[in-house]
Parts: sequence; C-alpha cells; structure tokens
Amino acid sequence: MNFFSEDKLSHMLVARKPEQHGTSVCVGSAEGKKLFIGGGKPVVIAGPCALEAEEEALSLAKGLKELGVSIFRAMLFKPRSSPYSFQGLGEAGLSILDEIKKQTSLLLLSEVCSEREADLTAPHADILQIGTRNMSNFELLKHVGRLNRPIVLKRGMGASIIEWLNAAEYILAEGNPNVILCERGIKTFELYTRFTLDISAIPAVKELSHLPIIADPSHASGRRSLITPLSRAILASGADGLMVEVHQSPQNSLSDAKQALSLNDFIELKKSVQVFL
Amino acid sequence: MNFFSEDKLSHMLVARKPEQHGTSVCVGSAEGKKLFIGGGKPVVIAGPCALEAEEEALSLAKGLKELGVSIFRAMLFKPRSSPYSFQGLGEAGLSILDEIKKQTSLLLLSEVCSEREADLTAPHADILQIGTRNMSNFELLKHVGRLNRPIVLKRGMGASIIEWLNAAEYILAEGNPNVILCERGIKTFELYTRFTLDISAIPAVKELSHLPIIADPSHASGRRSLITPLSRAILASGADGLMVEVHQSPQNSLSDAKQALSLNDFIELKKSVQVFL
Amino acid sequence: MNFFSEDKLSHMLVARKPEQHGTSVCVGSAEGKKLFIGGGKPVVIAGPCALEAEEEALSLAKGLKELGVSIFRAMLFKPRSSPYSFQGLGEAGLSILDEIKKQTSLLLLSEVCSEREADLTAPHADILQIGTRNMSNFELLKHVGRLNRPIVLKRGMGASIIEWLNAAEYILAEGNPNVILCERGIKTFELYTRFTLDISAIPAVKELSHLPIIADPSHASGRRSLITPLSRAILASGADGLMVEVHQSPQNSLSDAKQALSLNDFIELKKSVQVFL
Amino acid sequence: MNFFSEDKLSHMLVARKPEQHGTSVCVGSAEGKKLFIGGGKPVVIAGPCALEAEEEALSLAKGLKELGVSIFRAMLFKPRSSPYSFQGLGEAGLSILDEIKKQTSLLLLSEVCSEREADLTAPHADILQIGTRNMSNFELLKHVGRLNRPIVLKRGMGASIIEWLNAAEYILAEGNPNVILCERGIKTFELYTRFTLDISAIPAVKELSHLPIIADPSHASGRRSLITPLSRAILASGADGLMVEVHQSPQNSLSDAKQALSLNDFIELKKSVQVFL
Repeated sequence: MNFFSEDKLSHMLVARKPEQHGTSVCVGSAEGKKLFIGGGKPVVIAGPCALEAEEEALSLAKGLKELGVSIFRAMLFKPRSSPYSFQGLGEAGLSILDEIKKQTSLLLLSEVCSEREADLTAPHADILQIGTRNMSNFELLKHVGRLNRPIVLKRGMGASIIEWLNAAEYILAEGNPNVILCERGIKTFELYTRFTLDISAIPAVKELSHLPIIADPSHASGRRSLITPLSRAILASGADGLMVEVHQSPQNSLSDAKQALSLNDFIELKKSVQVFL
Repeated sequence: MNFFSEDKLSHMLVARKPEQHGTSVCVGSAEGKKLFIGGGKPVVIAGPCALEAEEEALSLAKGLKELGVSIFRAMLFKPRSSPYSFQGLGEAGLSILDEIKKQTSLLLLSEVCSEREADLTAPHADILQIGTRNMSNFELLKHVGRLNRPIVLKRGMGASIIEWLNAAEYILAEGNPNVILCERGIKTFELYTRFTLDISAIPAVKELSHLPIIADPSHASGRRSLITPLSRAILASGADGLMVEVHQSPQNSLSDAKQALSLNDFIELKKSVQVFL
Repeated sequence: MNFFSEDKLSHMLVARKPEQHGTSVCVGSAEGKKLFIGGGKPVVIAGPCALEAEEEALSLAKGLKELGVSIFRAMLFKPRSSPYSFQGLGEAGLSILDEIKKQTSLLLLSEVCSEREADLTAPHADILQIGTRNMSNFELLKHVGRLNRPIVLKRGMGASIIEWLNAAEYILAEGNPNVILCERGIKTFELYTRFTLDISAIPAVKELSHLPIIADPSHASGRRSLITPLSRAILASGADGLMVEVHQSPQNSLSDAKQALSLNDFIELKKSVQVFL
Repeated sequence: MNFFSEDKLSHMLVARKPEQHGTSVCVGSAEGKKLFIGGGKPVVIAGPCALEAEEEALSLAKGLKELGVSIFRAMLFKPRSSPYSFQGLGEAGLSILDEIKKQTSLLLLSEVCSEREADLTAPHADILQIGTRNMSNFELLKHVGRLNRPIVLKRGMGASIIEWLNAAEYILAEGNPNVILCERGIKTFELYTRFTLDISAIPAVKELSHLPIIADPSHASGRRSLITPLSRAILASGADGLMVEVHQSPQNSLSDAKQALSLNDFIELKKSVQVFL
C-alpha cells in the first residue's frame, strides 16, 4: 500500500525511458581531466568515516591517491545516533578540505545535514552527500536541488527503492540533474551484519532509472571482513562505483572502527575488484 | 550491533531514574485551564492529515471541540513521498491557525520540516511536531530544542526505540525538556497494514524513559476499520494519548483518504475508548 | 507480490462472509462444562514454556487452577533453535499429562512438531498446538486437519497475515474446522523485544476471518516486564484470549527464563486484565 | 536477544575451525565422474519450479544438459502458500525422475516436505532439498540427517544466519555431514523484489562455517530481469553455485511464471557468468 506504482514512476524525471542510456554525471575535474560517475568505468570513493585531524587526513589522502583513488570521503558534519558521540570537525574543518585539494587534487565528497551546512560546504567540496538519516528531509533535498554541485543521495535505512527514487526526484525537480544514488543497506531482522545490503537494488535502480548508482559495503555490513566480497558483488551486479571507509589506523577511529579498512586492507580490496574496474 | 546499550542510555536526560514518575508536559492553556500530556488522563489529538481550506478546517475544529477534543491537528507543511503530491497549504495557512484558535480556543499541533518552518509556525501553534521522516534530521532537532514550544517527536519508520530516544535526547540536550514521543508504526514485511504499529514500544518507552508517549493508529494502519481496536490497545497498554486523523469528508481528502475517520466515525471511536479516558 | 489478494481470500473456508459471526471453537469440557474459544468471554491459557518435571508441573497446574485458569500449557515436544538446547520431556512426559488431567481436570494444550508426535499426543491432550516454526509445514497441517482435536495455529515469525490464513486453510480443507489462530510476534529490526507483537493482526484477522484469535505476549516480547501491558492491549483490541508463560521459579526455567511469570506475577496480571474478562 | 552467540557457534559441527578449508560435498557421479559442490568450480543447478509433465521435463533436461548444466531441479512435491495452488506431481512423478536420469545422466535435485516424501524420493534423486518453509521443521531435519543423501538446506525466509546454521547442525548432528546451504532471500519491507537476497550471507557463512553455500536468485527476486545481475553478484561474492528456475515456456508455467527463464534467457545468463565458472 505504501508505495508508488511503477506506472506513476514512469512520468518522473528520474525514470529511465525505453532504450535510454544511463546518465553520466560529471563530478569534477582533476589534473585537467573530467571525472564521471555512470556510463563507464566504475569509480572507487574512499576515505575515513569522518575527518579527525589535518595531518592524518592529508597523509591518508596522499596514500589513497597513490593507490589510484580519485574521490576522497572528506566528511566534516557527521550525524550520529547519540548527541554525545563525536559529531565531526564541523565548520572548523573546511580549511582541511582546501589543503587536501591543494596538495592532492583529489575530488572531495562531503556530507551535509542542513541547508546551512550545504551552503558552507559547497565552495570547498566537489560532491555533496545527503546521508541515510536525511533522505526524507525534503526541505534539504530541495535546497541542494538548487545548488550547482553533484549530489550523492544515500538510501534511507527504512526506505523502499521507490521512496528513494522519489527523494531523488525532489532534487531533480528543483533543477539539479546530477544525482548519484548510493545503496548502503536497509534495516532487517538479520543481526550478523549492521544492515542488510540490498544488492537487488542495484539492477532494480538500473531498470527503473537512468541515474548512476554506487554502493557502500562498509556501512552496510559494519564488518571489515565482509567488505571485499561485497565490493565484488556490488561491481559484478552492475554498480557504477563503490564507497568504502579507509582509516590510517582503524583501531583508533573515532567512529565505525569495526568497519574501516587500513591502507593495506584497501590494497587487497583493489586487487580483488580489479577485474571489474 | 547498531544500537546503544541500555547502560549507556541510563546516563541520558531522557532516561527514567529508578522510582522516577513520568513527566507531565504542559502543552498550553485553553479557557484558563492548563493542559498536560503525561502523568494523568490520556488526551486525544484529532484533525485532518493536512489542512486544505479555511472553512472546512473551522467547521471540523468546531465539531471536534464539541466532541471533547482539546488538541487539533493543524498541519500546514506536509512532507510527501512524491514531490508532485499535495504538500500542504504552507505559509499561506498560518492565518487559518490564528482563526481556528480565535474561534475555538483549541490547542493547535502543527508539523514542521525545517528550521524556517519551525520559526514561522511557533508563534501560531501550541505544539510543534517533528514527523517520522525527520526523526533523524538532527539539525532540526537541535533547532526545536532551542524553541519554547513542546515537541511531539514521531518515531522514524525505520528507527529502533533506542535510536528514537537518542533523537529525543538531541532536543533535551539543547534545553527543551518538553518532548512527547509518538509511536506511528514501523516498516516490516507485513503488507495488510501500511506500517506495523509497535505496541510494545509503549510499555518499553515507559520503562526506559520518563517522557510521555502517545500513538497514531491512523498512519500506523492506513485502514479506517482498524483505528478503533488499535486505539483501545494503545490506551490499554498505558499510552498518554492518541492522535487520529479526522476529515469532514474522508473520501475527498487530498491525502491519506483511506485512513481518515469522519466525525461520525470519531463519535464511535470516542465511545469505544471512553473507559480508558 | 508475495501475497494472495483479498479477493482470492474471500472464497476460502477461513474467510468471514458478510455479516458472519465469529466462530466459537469448543476446546473440551471440564467438570461437566464445555469450554469455548471465540465469540464470548476471552480465555487465559497459562503454563510453563515446557514441562520439566512431574511434581513441579502438578503443583503449578493446581496453583493456576486456583487462580481461575482453565487451560494449561503442557508442552512435551519443544522445538529449539539449537539441537543442543533442552528439547522437552518428549514421549516420556505423556503420563504427566494424564496425571495433571486426573488431579486438576484442566484442559491441556500441547505442541506437536511431526505427524508422529501428533498421533502420540492427541489421546492425552485437549488441544494441539502447531508452533511458529511449523506454520508452513503443510504436511503436518494436513495431518492435524484429519485429527479430531482443536488446533492452535501460531503465526510463523516470518509469515504475513494472509500466508497465516492460508496455512489455517490447509487444516480446514482437510475437514477440521476447529482452528484457533495465535499471534506471537514477527521478525523486525526492533531489538528491544524478542519479536514485534503485531497487534494490528488481531482486528485484521477479525475482519478477514471468522476464526477465533488469541495472542502470546510472552514469546512476542521476551521480557517479563512487558507482559501485563501487552496482555491488556491484546484483550482491548478484541482478542479471544491470551497465552502466557508461567513457571514455578522463572529463574530456574530450562527455557525462556527471561519471559516467564511467577505465580505472583500472574496474580498481578489477572488483576490488571480483569476488566476485559 | 533471539540469537546464539558466535562463541556458542564455535563448538558446533557446522563451525569453521581456524585455518579450516571449505568442505567439498560429493553430490553424485555422472558419466563416471564425481561432482562436488564446494571448494572448487561453482556449479549451476537449473530446472523448472516444479515438474509438470514428462515430455516437457525430458526436453528441458536435455536442453539444459547441452548447455553444460550437470544438476537438474526435478521437483515433485511443491509446498505452496495456498492449498488450492498446484502442489506438484507428487509420487506419480517418481518414474519421470528415473526416465530423466536414464536419458540424460543428469544429477537430480528434488524437494521433500515430510519424512514420507524423503523416503519416497531418496532412491530416485541424487540430492534432497529442504525448502525455506521447512527450515525449522526440526523433525524432518533429523530424519534427512539419517539418510544417505546430500541435502540442500534453504534458508528460512524469516531466519537469521545463525538460526540457519543451527538448522544445518540438526542434520549434521544426526550423522549426515553432506549439507549445502542455499540463500534464497529474506522477508523485508522492500516490495520491488519478492524477497530481499541477503548477499552478505554468502561471505558471512563462509567465515562462520565450512559448509558450501549456493544461492537462488529466482525465488529471491521473483523478477526475470534481475536474475542475471544477481547471479553475477552471487558468484562474485564467493558462492559455490547458483540455482535458477528455467522453464520450456515460462509464460505457461503453473508456478512462479514471472521469475522463470527460458532456455534462451539461460544461454544469456551462462555467458554473463562464464567469467566466474
């Protein structure tokens, strides 16, 4: 009962028309070369759950760049279930973004949780992320729909695929066509993983929509040991990219310590997914 | 894995200390009498899913007042899954709130979806509601935590009880202790109802927290025929109140037509729950 | 997609025809008086998760009888998630059923997990229970559909209401109309309770089917402290009865220790639900 | 609360000991060659949801053999949600199994739903399947644990990974070590697919257990268009095989018509997964 019919979907901006190709979203240029998500080689986005300190962030960004990463997770505003958990560096970290950009030329992806954070972050980041907790924050979606930045829209942990596509429609309807969907796991009764990665959402979105779709096996599983096999599954199913958490020293991470990869783990991951890139 | 321990909860502002009584939240005064939610007689909040036109709203409000209702659902900003569905009257409806207040002295509850909407609505409404889609919009929670208005915080449709209590903590931690929790159903595999009313959440919240808790059987079930038996269950389980959708002519409702009660249905509901009031 | 339409349901034996009254199922006679479930005063079924020893079982049965219980949970075959957990007394306990009957005249309800167990138990018990793990064991359903005993059919923890009614249809289609449905909680993402009691299933079943429905708050919640408020909710919503776990000394129970009530707890429960009986 | 700790798991027969290799289960011999599932090249099991008639079954089996399939789904006993749906050919189809074997030498997999069906089928089939509806039918699990046939144990649609491994333990504990687990989707709130394929279960089972694991994208998704991308994901994540529904003319199938592949679809699938075989 609580879903839009596929019929209704077909009249939307996000809908894939018959024979339509998938959209390539230009997410910025690095060293004179434009980078796209969708319609070509899958991308790998990597970085810590949240930035914690400048020196470590720079060192990690350089390490990831050497390993072929072109988009860095550079999170400053970190929505956490408890108000007493580490909430990210916030506004104070904006200069770190500039420094990473200057020293590495990496494209930067950063999460925003309010209109104010979006306005603050947009000049310093290439891609804005709307996280799972804000997928249904429609006022924020409309706001980023009026910004000139590509948006990674994570799926709400309790949202159906159709509700998620409707959330994307809020952004497109305001004039911003550059939306990349990101599957990150849904709430189910299974407890071995933190969430249940809905792998079917990848080909489902591909048949319903022309928008690119990536997936985040780190938040979905919450377990370091599952990230490589899930990354392979994600790419094999047709996703346009991966987003993974990598930390200088995962055991010291201020958030999501159990799911972050070390640089060495990331090297193994890259080898294991090379065939799909 | 993705939950806070009960231990951790015990240090929070929302936590019930041993032997602590439930909190009574004063939600305003009508005709020289203060009205409280929690710690006493349960309240019934009623009104349409969203206000549609002034005349109907006034007539419905008067009808509900005659039936003993003291708090009116007066929604202007209506977050809808699709950007193309009716989104409420918005700012233009604020004068209707004033008119209803003037003519009926009813207390008014109105949903807000952004900091701007909260600031606009606060002078015209007695109680602000944060809806299910914004339960994890922490920036909005912090904002209403700094306003001088009681807040009804609906449970996220994908949120655990512990995540919900942590969301309430965001409001209390900013200085606003006047939070009323509202159970409204969670996403499950059961399709006969729109959502699954988590009746256990009522006594669970009562043992974990001192905050009042009410429930909304209209959105939970999405079926008119189930609202009366669910209302009885909600009150029998110890809830501090009910929120139900009532519409002048449910079949013409612009949203949630299947779940709205007519005034006559509401009379039957009132009779059926009278023993609990 | 994975559900039967309500249309299709309407042709089934379990379906409620327009204006049809709810069925009263005769579950046996005690002291010359027939006892019914459905269509009248709600019943309370009580007893331990599984029988453990004769003396305690007899003492508990007598205690419950004095408190007005007329149906005793007398489980011998206990399906457990692990093959290494206590599985019940099995066949060896059949003589205990006879002894309880002789000394108390209580009606006895006992779970069966296979055709053989059904044949063994039927002569010694008044009511046979098909548990949640066997709701879709259709060969067993057909078998008990050919026995002359009323059947309590628990809902599968992963089954929709419509799937559950179809399971009941397997029994009725074989010729046994005496089926009592029992809601016992479904699997959801909420972890504070063991399962999520689907309170809406009670009025939903009442509108879809003429069969009686009871509910089990003990297995649903897995928490002693929630059983009384949930029992009130269950009866207030229109259920035909309750099934609760009561143990001589819950802390020593070989299974489900956290959810069993003591006799003193049960006295409190009875007082609290008296208004619905 | 409702799960076994990983600690407890480590003492079980299904548990993977440190450094232990995955088990290879011998599922039979065809043309003088033993076939194994686990520990080597993944297998593809294919065939109709249920056998409907001898001629079509033979023709399909021959077609699949030519395409390199070595194990044929040859279902005679088909548990259906409704007692009025096609239930399979039953006992009358046993001679068809013999004929397929004689004419094709394919290994045959057939589902059994009761002890009697297991005893009837075992002499005619190479592999017995316990379906999702009987995963918690522990008496049946114990029975097939005493038979000399490899068992494919499908995950219950409402069962956690740990509950599923415990179900497998019931078979191993009776002396039959030849169990192959099969992920087939779980119940969640997502409705676009029939069930939600839990892709994480594949690497999760691989780290918890030494047993082989395969997956069934046909029942999981219920949509023909998703089967190829999901098959790629399943194999990329490390599964030991696939089970897919193939029908002579899917549009005429008596069950699961929307999810069956035609022989031509199957050729495309094979090409698409060739890299993983």
